[in-house]
Amino acid sequence: MTPAFLRTAVVIGCGVTGTSIALALTGAGVEVALVDQDADAVARARRTGAGTAWTPDRPPADLVVVATPPSTVVDVLHDAQARGLGHVCTDTAGTKDIVAAEAELRGCDLKGYVPGHPLPAGDPAAGPSASRFAGRPWILCPYDTTPRWALATVAELAALCGAVRRDMTPQEHDLAMAAVSHVPYVVAAVVAGGLLDVDPALLPLAGDELAGVVRAVAALPGAGSDLLAHNAGPVADRLDKAAGALAAAARMLHRGEDTVPVELALLLELGERGRAALEAAGEHRTAEDARGPDRM
Amino acid sequence: MTPAFLRTAVVIGCGVTGTSIALALTGAGVEVALVDQDADAVARARRTGAGTAWTPDRPPADLVVVATPPSTVVDVLHDAQARGLGHVCTDTAGTKDIVAAEAELRGCDLKGYVPGHPLPAGDPAAGPSASRFAGRPWILCPYDTTPRWALATVAELAALCGAVRRDMTPQEHDLAMAAVSHVPYVVAAVVAGGLLDVDPALLPLAGDELAGVVRAVAALPGAGSDLLAHNAGPVADRLDKAAGALAAAARMLHRGEDTVPVELALLLELGERGRAALEAAGEHRTAEDARGPDRM
Repeated sequence: MTPAFLRTAVVIGCGVTGTSIALALTGAGVEVALVDQDADAVARARRTGAGTAWTPDRPPADLVVVATPPSTVVDVLHDAQARGLGHVCTDTAGTKDIVAAEAELRGCDLKGYVPGHPLPAGDPAAGPSASRFAGRPWILCPYDTTPRWALATVAELAALCGAVRRDMTPQEHDLAMAAVSHVPYVVAAVVAGGLLDVDPALLPLAGDELAGVVRAVAALPGAGSDLLAHNAGPVADRLDKAAGALAAAARMLHRGEDTVPVELALLLELGERGRAALEAAGEHRTAEDARGPDRM
Repeated sequence: MTPAFLRTAVVIGCGVTGTSIALALTGAGVEVALVDQDADAVARARRTGAGTAWTPDRPPADLVVVATPPSTVVDVLHDAQARGLGHVCTDTAGTKDIVAAEAELRGCDLKGYVPGHPLPAGDPAAGPSASRFAGRPWILCPYDTTPRWALATVAELAALCGAVRRDMTPQEHDLAMAAVSHVPYVVAAVVAGGLLDVDPALLPLAGDELAGVVRAVAALPGAGSDLLAHNAGPVADRLDKAAGALAAAARMLHRGEDTVPVELALLLELGERGRAALEAAGEHRTAEDARGPDRM
């Protein structure tokens, strides 16, 4: 695919996400300039071939990608627009409602900003890679007023990274992420934390199922609690529902009647149906396959 | 290892667990007779080389392994002892307190019964295999009155299957299994069931972490609700704790104060420590490695 709207880009934030995007863009022939308040991070990204260090003498780029921690995104975006770093900006934060609303409140130029969220495959601990986005969703949450050319530029970013663009509202995005990522993460943390009162000598009794649940604890980056706080309403609503379901199961078991297995079987059957629905969605398997057997 | 106490065995229940045990014993030179109320199940097990069909003219075996569904174990055990199928009996049920107590109440011969629970690696759906127990724990819950020769016979069963014998009380066993298996299973079912109200078009947003959590739903066999009901107290207590922790996290988020990320970070940090403890226990990784890359 030959870039049309997107020939030059500035990537702000040379962490795993930013560097991976820079690598993908550079590989697609885009001229990428790198920014990070940590000069070492820029140097590391340069060494991987992600681009060159940004310099103040550059003309505005076609696109600025803000790939900094979620709580800093709006400040960085506002600053990038004020300094004229590029014509269109997007970001990679994992919550969208609060970021999109804060950008508006802060007075960012909404004609030149398309909130975005790429959903890479694989383990961030494995480091940056141009292929992390291949075949994975890349959410865009344009404003009603977003001009077509701005949206086309950010859509090209997703396409050049091999991702599958999906447009939705920030609210739709955050509800979905609460269900498929944020709440499973908190639940996994609670299950894992519960192991701290188990005699360590008994932990080897655990099978693969526990390892699978607990591994999810490592899935969100260090700023996980920031992310959850930025999606507080949707996450809290779902946590309440999960807490209610677990408490109901506990009540059934405490009651100890003969009907318990039947009532529990219903709860487990719903779980089995949810599992089947996720498997049918399929793309998560594809992403897993892409990880390869070395990721076992 | 040459069998000492254990030269002949009867395996009752030709499901995945029973057939896997029969395969391991046959492979170790034990003469194995197979019993199942379903003649097809016996025929299938015979075809895999697990042993021969049991016939009434046989003398009592050195060991009877009851590998039937948990709710039938005590009836089958009582019947096997009444018919003199073998000198020592053990079982493979996933809860031990209720089984050990019922066997006593029912009037089984406790001198000839050692409650047991092998914890195989791998996916039961992959079918029986002699190597499922290699390096994995095999719990024995002897009574105070269990004779040494009976315990030695069952210990030899575990050793011939390549498993690591661990002795504990039925109560210790059930508390541990609630923590490392039963509660994670219920929690996974609740998370997976919660996906049923998510637009299926959004499920591909899920990453590996959700797949890992949800996969645990498939880990327990069909009679999962029986198993939970048989470990009602320990499971209910832990479910209450997990429900409390999730509800507390929801309250923090609903409150929406600036301190939320810090309080949540503590919950996530405990999860991270539990994950590290499980990883340090190590054996679950070994078991996973044994599954091989074809299990991705």
